[in-house]
Amino acid sequence: MPGYPLAARNANIASFEVMELVKQALALEQQGKPIIHLSIGEPDFTAPEPVLAALERAARSGQTGYTPALGITPLREAIARDYATRHGITIDPRRIIVTAGASAALTLACCALVGVGDEVLLTDPSYPCNRHFVAAFDGIPRAVPVFAATRFQMTEGLLAEHWGPATRGTLLASPANPTGTSIPFDELARIVNFARAQGGFTLVDEIYLGLTYEGTPRTALELGADIIVVNSFSKYFSMTGWRLGWLVVPQALVGAFEKLAQNLFICASTLAQNAALACFTPEAGMVFEARRAEFKRRRDAIVAAMTALGFGIPVIPDGAFYVWLDCSRFGDSRLLAKRLLEEAHVSLVPGQDFGANEPGRWMRLSYANSMDNLLEAARRIGAILGTNTDRPG
Amino acid sequence: MPGYPLAARNANIASFEVMELVKQALALEQQGKPIIHLSIGEPDFTAPEPVLAALERAARSGQTGYTPALGITPLREAIARDYATRHGITIDPRRIIVTAGASAALTLACCALVGVGDEVLLTDPSYPCNRHFVAAFDGIPRAVPVFAATRFQMTEGLLAEHWGPATRGTLLASPANPTGTSIPFDELARIVNFARAQGGFTLVDEIYLGLTYEGTPRTALELGADIIVVNSFSKYFSMTGWRLGWLVVPQALVGAFEKLAQNLFICASTLAQNAALACFTPEAGMVFEARRAEFKRRRDAIVAAMTALGFGIPVIPDGAFYVWLDCSRFGDSRLLAKRLLEEAHVSLVPGQDFGANEPGRWMRLSYANSMDNLLEAARRIGAILGTNTDRPG
Repeated sequence: MPGYPLAARNANIASFEVMELVKQALALEQQGKPIIHLSIGEPDFTAPEPVLAALERAARSGQTGYTPALGITPLREAIARDYATRHGITIDPRRIIVTAGASAALTLACCALVGVGDEVLLTDPSYPCNRHFVAAFDGIPRAVPVFAATRFQMTEGLLAEHWGPATRGTLLASPANPTGTSIPFDELARIVNFARAQGGFTLVDEIYLGLTYEGTPRTALELGADIIVVNSFSKYFSMTGWRLGWLVVPQALVGAFEKLAQNLFICASTLAQNAALACFTPEAGMVFEARRAEFKRRRDAIVAAMTALGFGIPVIPDGAFYVWLDCSRFGDSRLLAKRLLEEAHVSLVPGQDFGANEPGRWMRLSYANSMDNLLEAARRIGAILGTNTDRPG
Repeated sequence: MPGYPLAARNANIASFEVMELVKQALALEQQGKPIIHLSIGEPDFTAPEPVLAALERAARSGQTGYTPALGITPLREAIARDYATRHGITIDPRRIIVTAGASAALTLACCALVGVGDEVLLTDPSYPCNRHFVAAFDGIPRAVPVFAATRFQMTEGLLAEHWGPATRGTLLASPANPTGTSIPFDELARIVNFARAQGGFTLVDEIYLGLTYEGTPRTALELGADIIVVNSFSKYFSMTGWRLGWLVVPQALVGAFEKLAQNLFICASTLAQNAALACFTPEAGMVFEARRAEFKRRRDAIVAAMTALGFGIPVIPDGAFYVWLDCSRFGDSRLLAKRLLEEAHVSLVPGQDFGANEPGRWMRLSYANSMDNLLEAARRIGAILGTNTDRPG
């Protein structure tokens, strides 16, 4: 060890345990095992042709220098137009901040809003990074255990129950990782009103909002100009490794966020920004909508298949590309994940990465994989568990 | 304003004042004024052909998903080989962490090392973001005023003088922005030994190390396996807007940095990582070395020209692409920068962005512009100041 210590906050930030499982899965794959990965949080699609063409145009014309910290104006305007088109809501493009992925958006939001010792309420289970952004800025992520009765989501009642003197706001995700469930919009309105009445912020991770399968997705931005929303080009737009996302912040805070973005990031990738402009062309839009339909088809198939195998799915996921599986019939989820990887060559993520609320009961299945692979995975799992060896879909 | 407050730390993070000047320069340019920008911290070169070709191959083959948090192995290995080739030093590739620019590298380093209330010693003047990374994690950047006598750089003596009970380490830059000066290597060795003896870290920003014009550049990594170094593809490799850099950290800290990188960034741009592999081809290497020679030629010309005009250059810069100009003969540097922009249409950065140590005396000139523009800028400045209207180079 070097002679100098780590900062104390490092003790509050955990590794992804799933990474060990992923390494093991890759090792098995290299041994020739036909692994089916249902553990991965990224689409099995890549950026469509118009985006690649826009990338090449930008690179060849030397559009590779720094951009303004808030992002290039045409992209901020395109995102604003997309809110108007798809959500019927008018957002001033000056409130939109282009970031290096939702990761950078959450860094900016937590650096801006979460002081040392400030508490932020999040659900348990939730995406682990979200609580770690709070911890990175020496805030205290306060876990609110959630269950099937509230769609594994926050409610006004839970917020009121857990809100304390040090609470500064809540960080929600809708649709959520790992459960694939959204907050009903009327409940979200009550949550926002409650937080607002306490002088607290509502920060909503909407990176899966484009991947909604029931009804028209509604953004929390409808609920007031004080809401802060995080979004991303990674999921609906299939651009994970491009590292591009955005924030919408209250007009009065744009200056504070700009200052942080200048200092902490300079800007998001210039090539990714220029390429992403093509996401809003009709041609790309048709590709994204076809993919969304395909995700829905997969969801329906895998929910049916896993239910038939004896897994519990108490809330049918309405968004993202995850199913939160109750494994209690088959024992501890970590042991089950290990067994399914080694014997069925199917990789899933056991619950402990997502919190401390019954982690041994749950597993996350990602259906960001082909229909053939999903059905083959279900067949293999059925063969191992002895619950169903027929065509499960 | 929304009803919720900003975190207290925001008061310790400043905007770039130069941004206002840049906006003014762009406004004048849009009015048709022939502005020469000597204010910008990025090369006027873009990535060479092999890098663009590698980008397109990666994009077309769908290499756009997430990568491991520490970066793709071939790039970490290529960087390690480059240390062996250019610096004659063996660095285990597992100690190399690929990041979203030097910005992300500094975020990781400060999150890992700087606890609430911890002091970090930096020079004044220095690149403003560096102190703001410390402040973002609620550390206290302690400014050490430096002068021409120490090449505007830290010394062991200054470190000893300013080291206090809350000091956890020092963040240095060599070559430095805004002065273009490096720390003599024997002095750097003494600094490292002093910090080490106090149980403190030495973190060295080497993003301009490839742009060294006197002798062979030496990396602080030579001075021990406990040194942490930040580097970047932005400057020597001309890839600013691609947002790619790296860290070298002690072996024992790789796990802690990996955990933070997973949570705060997921990974650096996959396209940029794949494209950057081509930076280490002989073809690209020749381009970069030719550009370095061109920067040196410009440095020599502009140092001579500005000296002839009556500016003081007490330390000839040996790296980066900046000259730190003593403007005392012409009055306050902020007023002078305004006048030069409005009357000579030449944009330079007055000292106040870089610290509180005699800011009104100094201006930063960036020679990341063509030789023709540099000489024309000097001619125009001479005409305004009345000190020299002849060919100034």
